[in-house]
Amino acid sequence: MRYFVVVGHKATTSPNFSLEDIPGTSGRLDILCRSVTAAFVISHGIRKDVCVYLVLLGGDVPKTIRLCGETLRHLNPDERTTAALLKKALNVPATPEWDMTTSGIFVRTGGLAQVLEDLKSARLIYLREDGTNICGPVSGTFKGDAAFILGDHTGMTPEEEAMITGAGAEVISLGPTSLHADHCIVLINWFLDTCPI
Amino acid sequence: MRYFVVVGHKATTSPNFSLEDIPGTSGRLDILCRSVTAAFVISHGIRKDVCVYLVLLGGDVPKTIRLCGETLRHLNPDERTTAALLKKALNVPATPEWDMTTSGIFVRTGGLAQVLEDLKSARLIYLREDGTNICGPVSGTFKGDAAFILGDHTGMTPEEEAMITGAGAEVISLGPTSLHADHCIVLINWFLDTCPI
Repeated sequence: MRYFVVVGHKATTSPNFSLEDIPGTSGRLDILCRSVTAAFVISHGIRKDVCVYLVLLGGDVPKTIRLCGETLRHLNPDERTTAALLKKALNVPATPEWDMTTSGIFVRTGGLAQVLEDLKSARLIYLREDGTNICGPVSGTFKGDAAFILGDHTGMTPEEEAMITGAGAEVISLGPTSLHADHCIVLINWFLDTCPI
Repeated sequence: MRYFVVVGHKATTSPNFSLEDIPGTSGRLDILCRSVTAAFVISHGIRKDVCVYLVLLGGDVPKTIRLCGETLRHLNPDERTTAALLKKALNVPATPEWDMTTSGIFVRTGGLAQVLEDLKSARLIYLREDGTNICGPVSGTFKGDAAFILGDHTGMTPEEEAMITGAGAEVISLGPTSLHADHCIVLINWFLDTCPI
């Protein structure tokens, strides 16, 4: 399974944002919407072997939305449709246990620490510009479960970095150009698709 | 310069589409909007060395919108903002000559044949699943002006294919998975960024 974890530092945990102005009213949930489509959407369907965790830290209590490709329905490639699915997920009173809000989409309270705990049996990879280049020999070993951890436009805090590296994550770079999270996910999917072993 | 040409077979040439339902009212202009952001947007700005041609074939008379990174302004990473810029471009009565509608955005009547004529001094690359793999020795030669030609969700017609290959385009593939146009553009930008020569 391919896991993508995207941390939205300002991303709202409330459904009260406007689909007419997603960037301006949701704490940049648009970044997370594009990350979701980058993770799942291919030309004739969606990837079944992908699972996405969106960590939303822009409310009083953190929430996490999980999307699982195997059962995910109603996902279209456009940003607004994805935002509407997330809005539905945020409309449910979240608890520390996962609640399914539409097919393949789940919500709970909790943030990055809980996600890292969920993924402790996967190989953890933290994407950062100064990491080991993905084109090196490391890419040959992306077999089994791998979880890729990405920040949003504000980057990770020192506390989050400590938590991620403390969980054993390797730090890997996609190259010299600093890219948006969704573009990084497109590249990682391509690496995993084309990786010969 | 990196050129990206995206052909929207159903894409509207009229500004009368709804920003509240771009996929459903514009002949899938959403695909072209995402292609634009994939082509230009990086973490802290936009790529200056990119130029995008959107070929809109969903009206009585074809139109082409050209976006030039060097002077492009007001482009945000979200889909709706891009659609609003294209709406402005389509609001101008187009002629066979380029008209600037906002900084770095131009519109004219005409379709793929005219674009291929504009780009005749660039190396032409047509992206298709059964082409030569981009990871082969070919990628080492992407120097100078290169124009990448992509279809939308309906693929190219036989007439368009004949026009493209007749203009001397090489046929190149990004790998085994059939990807959306915007994701192809992300990958091509990455190849051009990381290509050692």
